[in-house]
Order: sequence, then C-alpha cells, then structure tokens
Amino acid sequence: MSDGLIAVIGATGAVGLEVLQILAGRGIDSSRVVAIASERSVGKSVPMGDQSLAIRPLAEGCFANVGTAIFGTDAAISREWCPKAVEAGAVVVDNSSAFRMDPAVPLIVPEVNGDVLRHAHLQSRGPKGLLIANPNCSTIILLMALTPLRDAFGVEHIVLSTYQAVSGAGIAAMDELRAQAQSVLDGVPAAPVVFKEPCAFNVFSHDSAMNVTTGLNGEEQKIIDETRKIWQDSAVRVSPTCVRVPVLRAHTQAITARLKSPATLEEVRRVLAAAPGVRIVDDRLQNSFPTPLKAAGRDEILIGRTRCDPGEPFDDSGRTRSFSLLICGDQLRKGAALNAVQIADELGCLQLARR
Amino acid sequence: MSDGLIAVIGATGAVGLEVLQILAGRGIDSSRVVAIASERSVGKSVPMGDQSLAIRPLAEGCFANVGTAIFGTDAAISREWCPKAVEAGAVVVDNSSAFRMDPAVPLIVPEVNGDVLRHAHLQSRGPKGLLIANPNCSTIILLMALTPLRDAFGVEHIVLSTYQAVSGAGIAAMDELRAQAQSVLDGVPAAPVVFKEPCAFNVFSHDSAMNVTTGLNGEEQKIIDETRKIWQDSAVRVSPTCVRVPVLRAHTQAITARLKSPATLEEVRRVLAAAPGVRIVDDRLQNSFPTPLKAAGRDEILIGRTRCDPGEPFDDSGRTRSFSLLICGDQLRKGAALNAVQIADELGCLQLARR
Repeated sequence: MSDGLIAVIGATGAVGLEVLQILAGRGIDSSRVVAIASERSVGKSVPMGDQSLAIRPLAEGCFANVGTAIFGTDAAISREWCPKAVEAGAVVVDNSSAFRMDPAVPLIVPEVNGDVLRHAHLQSRGPKGLLIANPNCSTIILLMALTPLRDAFGVEHIVLSTYQAVSGAGIAAMDELRAQAQSVLDGVPAAPVVFKEPCAFNVFSHDSAMNVTTGLNGEEQKIIDETRKIWQDSAVRVSPTCVRVPVLRAHTQAITARLKSPATLEEVRRVLAAAPGVRIVDDRLQNSFPTPLKAAGRDEILIGRTRCDPGEPFDDSGRTRSFSLLICGDQLRKGAALNAVQIADELGCLQLARR
Repeated sequence: MSDGLIAVIGATGAVGLEVLQILAGRGIDSSRVVAIASERSVGKSVPMGDQSLAIRPLAEGCFANVGTAIFGTDAAISREWCPKAVEAGAVVVDNSSAFRMDPAVPLIVPEVNGDVLRHAHLQSRGPKGLLIANPNCSTIILLMALTPLRDAFGVEHIVLSTYQAVSGAGIAAMDELRAQAQSVLDGVPAAPVVFKEPCAFNVFSHDSAMNVTTGLNGEEQKIIDETRKIWQDSAVRVSPTCVRVPVLRAHTQAITARLKSPATLEEVRRVLAAAPGVRIVDDRLQNSFPTPLKAAGRDEILIGRTRCDPGEPFDDSGRTRSFSLLICGDQLRKGAALNAVQIADELGCLQLARR
C-alpha cells in the first residue's frame, strides 16, 4: 500500500486525460492527485471528474511526496523520467514501450498475469520504488480474449489483423481525422501531418517504425514479443498484421487462433462468457457483433463472431482446433489508462487517496 | 465475336455507371450501347465518356438486337433477367451472385482462368447465347494476388481479413457514409439506413446475410466457395473474416497464405512482380504500402507488405511456407465492372462496337 500523492505524467495527453477520469470514477480525491506535463503546458489545467487540476511541470523534484506515478508519456520521456520517480520511492506504472521488454520489469494485464504483480510487489518493498510496464494496447485487447482459451485449451498459433483507431497516436491524430474528414467532405484534399498517409476515408499499414529486415512494423513486433512475455510462452506462434482505420478511439481485431487441444464451439463460448473483463456481443440472428463504437468508453473487451474456422477440419468427436473471433476494446481505456489504473489499484496504491 | 448492341443493365447503379465509363475508355461507340435500368429510372440519363445515354426500361423485348449484356443488378433481378438475355441470343456477363455457383456457368477472372472462358465460348456458339458469372469483388481481388503464388508454389491455406469499402453496397451506401460522417462532425448522431450499424468512424462485421449455423456471413462463404471453383481446388483451406470500414470505394485485404512448397521472400516477390494486373507498392524504407485511396480508380490490384510470416519457421535452405501480404483493389473496377468488361472483351464482344 502506498501513501503519498498520485501523479499522472503526460496529463494533457489522450492517455493522461483518461487516467484522470478513471481515477475520478474510482472515487479518488482530486486533492491527492498531481497532474504533470511538459513545461509548455504549465498554466493549463485538466479536468478530473468535476474538478480541475493545474498542470505542474515535469522537472527535477516533481516526484517529492508522490507515492504512485502513472506515466502516459512517450517512450523517450518515460525512459528518462520513470527511473527518477522510482528513485524517489514511487510505485510507477508506465504506459510506454520503454521498459516493457526489460526482464526486470513486470509487464502486466491484471486479469491475465496479476499473480506476477503480487509477487513483484512483495519483492520490491525496499527503500526504492517499483516499476511496472503497461503492455501495448493491441496486446492487452488480444490477451483479454485469448487468455481464457489458453488456460482452457492451450493456444498454439494466433493469426490476427487489427483495425486500429487513430487515438493510439494521440489527441493530435484524433483531431487530424476529424479535420481531414471535413476537408474531404468539402471537396478539399486532406493534408496529412500526424500520419504519412491520409487517415480519413482510408486504411493504411500501421504507422509505427518498420523493421526493413523482417518487414514487421513496431506494433506487430510488440504484439509478438509482449504476448510471449506475458504468457511466459516463447513458443507461441503469432502472425499479426497491424492496420489503422478511420475510427476515433477503439481497436478491432479479427483473430484466428489454433488451440493445442480441440474443442467444440459451445466449449469455447462457455469459457469466453465466464472470462473476466469481457462482454459477449454475438447475436447471429440479429447480425449484431462488436464494433468500435459499441466498445468506445466501455471498460470491457467486446467478443463476438465466435465460430469454428471453416479452414480447419473437425475430429471424430465434433471438435476442432481452430476458431475465429472479432473483438473490440477501447484503446484509451482497457488498452491503456484503465489497465494502468487497475495495476496501481491492485498494488493498493489508490486506497488512501479514496474519498 | 458478337455483333449487335451492348446492353448495360443496372446502368444507374455503382457498377453499371463504372461499366459505361470503362466501355468509353476502351473506345466503344456510345451509339452501340444501350443503358437499361428499372422502370422508375426511365426519363433519367447516364454518362458514358462525354456522351449521355437515355435510360431504357428493363422490360420484355429489351434485349432485341443486343449481342452482349453486362448485368450490374442484384441477384434477384439477375436471376429473372439474365436467362431472358441468353434466350435472346446475347453473351451475358452477370455481376451478381445469382449464377456463380451454377456448375454450368463459368466463373471467370480473365488473368486467373481465362482458359475456361475460351473453352466455354467455343462450346456455346449455338443459336442461344452464353452466360458467364463475374466473381464476388473480394474473391477477384484475393485471387489476383494469390494465383501467381499458387501457380509457382501451390497454396494450401489462406487466412484473410478484409477491410471493405461501402461501395460494395451501392451508391446509397456511399452517400450514407458521407452524410453520416458530416453528421458526426456536426455532433449529430448518425442514423443508419443502408447498413444496420453506423458506418462513419466505425467498423463492423460484413452486412451480408449470416448463416446462423456456420457463423459465416455471405461474403465469407462466397470467398471460400468461389476460390475453390475458380481454382478448381476443393481442398484449398480458406479462413476469411469480412469487415466493412469507412472507405468509399476500394477494398483492402490482410492475407496470410501457407504454400505447399517453401520459398524465399525473394522468390515470392519475383513471382508477384511478374504477375498480370497487379502493381507492387512495397517500400519498407519509406513505410509506403497499398492503401484504398491509392487503389481507387486504378485497374491494378496493389500488393505490398510482402513478408515472411513470423509465426512460421524457416527450413534449412532459408525457405518458409507462410507469407503475409496487404493488398488493395478498386471494388468497382477490377472487383466488378472492369472484370466484367474484360470478360466481354476476351470473348470478342466489343470489337465491332469500337469506334
């Protein structure tokens, strides 16, 4: 359990703003929260529930009296500042990719590997703080749906295609999508700034850095590496294609998963329906399935289109080893801010700050 | 070779309008073309190049003097009227799904199985006409990219996710996307009419009819069935997920294909680069790959993100059996109108009508 203040670093960004709203929703007293951002945001304020917090600068000494620090900053900022917050004794949850693959840093989705968190917490209570990494949004959303299947049947191979909202690239990207859409409707060609390709009425290969040798972009490599780390399974095969779509804030994934043990569709559905943090939206009669609009603003990952893979035969018992799903999750909530707050909450960091 | 007029049925629809423009672009004399649509469109006219054609009604006797009939109508209309055009002696190319799986009707992508077409043509020259079916747009786009790989290495299993433009649902759907996008930008909730789900700033499972037993939608089943028919390969495994995205008129597909024989990436790229009707857009250094905006209005299928599947091991010779691609094709051109005109052209139907 951590006393001291709760700092949200990158508080003016899409993830930081969402963290503040989630803290407010969990009954955290705003007088116990410090909103931190870069020098150029000083003088601004940000909302937290019905309160408003003045931005304080990210600067030496800013973590004094901070017991918990949730970073919604980019990897370069996190790489520099998370260690300082740890050094100041804080429990740090970092949303960026900076420390995710560091073997000394736990990478956590509470519903998936919360046990690691409790172990890490016990080990760490020396004079120094603790650093926990929040996985990539696509990894979190994927593993929320597939971990129950792994636990029940084993998962051997995952092929997935993403339909990713622009929110993953921040508020500027969301503004760009709206502005470009208006331009196109007005008959004026859109001028891309945040993305290299036009985002309105278009679809493009994910904008993360491309590895010219493997041909994988950064998002795809993160899904592979983080899945293996979180599942502690270096053998799981992952074949991702990451694509941006003109959606504001929830990610969609089309998944085909090959299990280690065969199952019936009913068995798969029963396991998914009982999983934590998910909601089944799977009405074949009404053709009603998950969409990013249905997922936006929700905490749960929506799961639907659950079906036997028509490319895989059935065995004699009517079971098959390959199933397909369509899932959606709010990239800013469970894909980022909510997962980070859940980690802090599970570590007991929020208890003293509750009203 | 067919003399007589060229009739375009469904001439006011998205596919019909595109057929007329493609005919104009191929130098067809507009005085040799008849634009046919339902009774309620009589009195309207449609553009063909710099000419304008008055709509004639789809009615008994309308195929008199028609040598070639290209149908851009829905399956119910085609089911009723294509046989009458054949009966009147015309060479008929039907864009709908009505006859695609009829064993007596060739299902043709000229670059893929044009040989079947020539065989069908020779067989048919009795007093009656000939009926050829145009495949589903997603099938055409998929097979343009994968047939060269099948010819070179064999294809055992295809996993694909689609990012389908709304144009597949016609002009009304394209209007709905624009109107909904404007509503959302104005802060007014969008009211879906053509689709059940909002299409602006959203993504949803394809709107074709859902088979409640298999859990596959009509579009997915078409891709499976038509691929097997066109490739004459009932064993090929196909695992599709079909999804609509807020794009106006070109479809995108993320494909992972398992080959029968292993290959190097260079071998796969060489085969794709030499394929007819495709264009390679695959610049890892510039992060430049196919997008629907790049494909819109173009005849070629764009192919990029060609890479070894990270979920598949290499053999001792540095070869692997699984590769991934991202492809885009204009749904209204190669996915529908262009393919239909190519079929007619290959059958010699357009020669006498050229200026």
